[in-house]
Amino acid sequence: MSADNRFVAETTFHVRYAETDAMGIVHHASYIVWFEEGRSAYARMRGSDYASFERNGYYLTVAEVHARYLHPMRYGVQVVVRCWVSVMQSRALTFAYEVVNADAGIVCVTGESRHICTTHDGRVSLIPEPWRSWGRD
Amino acid sequence: MSADNRFVAETTFHVRYAETDAMGIVHHASYIVWFEEGRSAYARMRGSDYASFERNGYYLTVAEVHARYLHPMRYGVQVVVRCWVSVMQSRALTFAYEVVNADAGIVCVTGESRHICTTHDGRVSLIPEPWRSWGRD
Amino acid sequence: MSADNRFVAETTFHVRYAETDAMGIVHHASYIVWFEEGRSAYARMRGSDYASFERNGYYLTVAEVHARYLHPMRYGVQVVVRCWVSVMQSRALTFAYEVVNADAGIVCVTGESRHICTTHDGRVSLIPEPWRSWGRD
Amino acid sequence: MSADNRFVAETTFHVRYAETDAMGIVHHASYIVWFEEGRSAYARMRGSDYASFERNGYYLTVAEVHARYLHPMRYGVQVVVRCWVSVMQSRALTFAYEVVNADAGIVCVTGESRHICTTHDGRVSLIPEPWRSWGRD
Repeated sequence: MSADNRFVAETTFHVRYAETDAMGIVHHASYIVWFEEGRSAYARMRGSDYASFERNGYYLTVAEVHARYLHPMRYGVQVVVRCWVSVMQSRALTFAYEVVNADAGIVCVTGESRHICTTHDGRVSLIPEPWRSWGRD
Repeated sequence: MSADNRFVAETTFHVRYAETDAMGIVHHASYIVWFEEGRSAYARMRGSDYASFERNGYYLTVAEVHARYLHPMRYGVQVVVRCWVSVMQSRALTFAYEVVNADAGIVCVTGESRHICTTHDGRVSLIPEPWRSWGRD
Repeated sequence: MSADNRFVAETTFHVRYAETDAMGIVHHASYIVWFEEGRSAYARMRGSDYASFERNGYYLTVAEVHARYLHPMRYGVQVVVRCWVSVMQSRALTFAYEVVNADAGIVCVTGESRHICTTHDGRVSLIPEPWRSWGRD
Repeated sequence: MSADNRFVAETTFHVRYAETDAMGIVHHASYIVWFEEGRSAYARMRGSDYASFERNGYYLTVAEVHARYLHPMRYGVQVVVRCWVSVMQSRALTFAYEVVNADAGIVCVTGESRHICTTHDGRVSLIPEPWRSWGRD
């Protein structure tokens, strides 16, 4: 789960009001959406975004997601999502995440998501380059 | 805007926690999603659901949406969404909505949405039957 | 994780269009919201809803969530969320979930969420009755 | 509705995958959330963010929202939300919005939202400074 020696993408934004709930804090499902935005940013920074991955005939289907909530976050706070590839296999990969309250400098949520590479007709496929190479650093 | 002599579909559900915000009330964008679920229920009750409308090659593109917020709603309350066709034209139609707090018996939000019928390649199209006929009652 | 001999709450609704994504299927974060609606329904069926739990001075903070995606779901399909208490401790509990495509009769997503009972000022608290007793069947 | 001579706040982000729907485009309710993020950015740029507005005892309740959808947007596109105050009254104000596809340089959605200033116990209130002054340019 450690990001040591990995390429780590960081993306920054403010907590939106719509992402809070009646407890006055960010709703726990919002972080799952932020994880996804974290891996979108990862692909953009690597130079091969997910939109082109899809246009080339592939999907990265979500097989599993896991989140641990350590500290709450509130509206307006600046968020940093840190995302890296923690496991790369030929047909599946796992992204790991840290969601940081940038104002307070603390990690609030951690998580992972596992994905299967498929073609648009649903068959499991080898992960194409350059995505495949992302497991090699 | 009145529902007089119109077929009115009612759909009932509870406010979800995720639909609230840090003010402790339902977030205003949640009602836009409920309007959509109201027109989904309308089509199901009419016997020709929107999933089959799409499978037949059409989309009902949202051109405009308008909501007026009269009273707040809270988590757990039972909601009734009332939906009817207020304007039917050959290529466009307007749905109208009332969102009712069923526990308190009051109308909390009203709105309308205007839609254009298109084919999947984006061309404006005549609204097919039986949808077209829904303007005739 | 098995629901054997447990009280299982079932709640039924249709997939909303807003819950789908550009892959044409239900977005994976939507299931996290459905899990929450599953445990809301659980509490309502047990006769002590979460709204009154909060009014009595408590929160059930989400500490962890985990979902496994087995089969995709699409707009308009009828969903059943099955929810039960899998672990009950004095200050924490775990709910387990199965999300079923009721039209096809298959389990599409499974998951769990772990929660800590706190007072509104954030201190960890004993889970009050009758919630506490839900671990005894 | 024109932004002539007004202070206009611009905020930029990418379309998130979760914000799309099964038509392959951004879901129409997502823009309502972006409008809100547009006015959050407006307040931040003006030097008095909405979080402190709330901490000072006020809410800006949404009374009405209206959106016109001119062109669809897709996952990954860079979005600019332009937001300005179009009407300022003593107890109410109206924000106007343009949502621009920054890659294509076209306005995709326009809208307005009307808000009432209240105290936390729900009474209508004068809009406090410096928010009040935002109608004077």
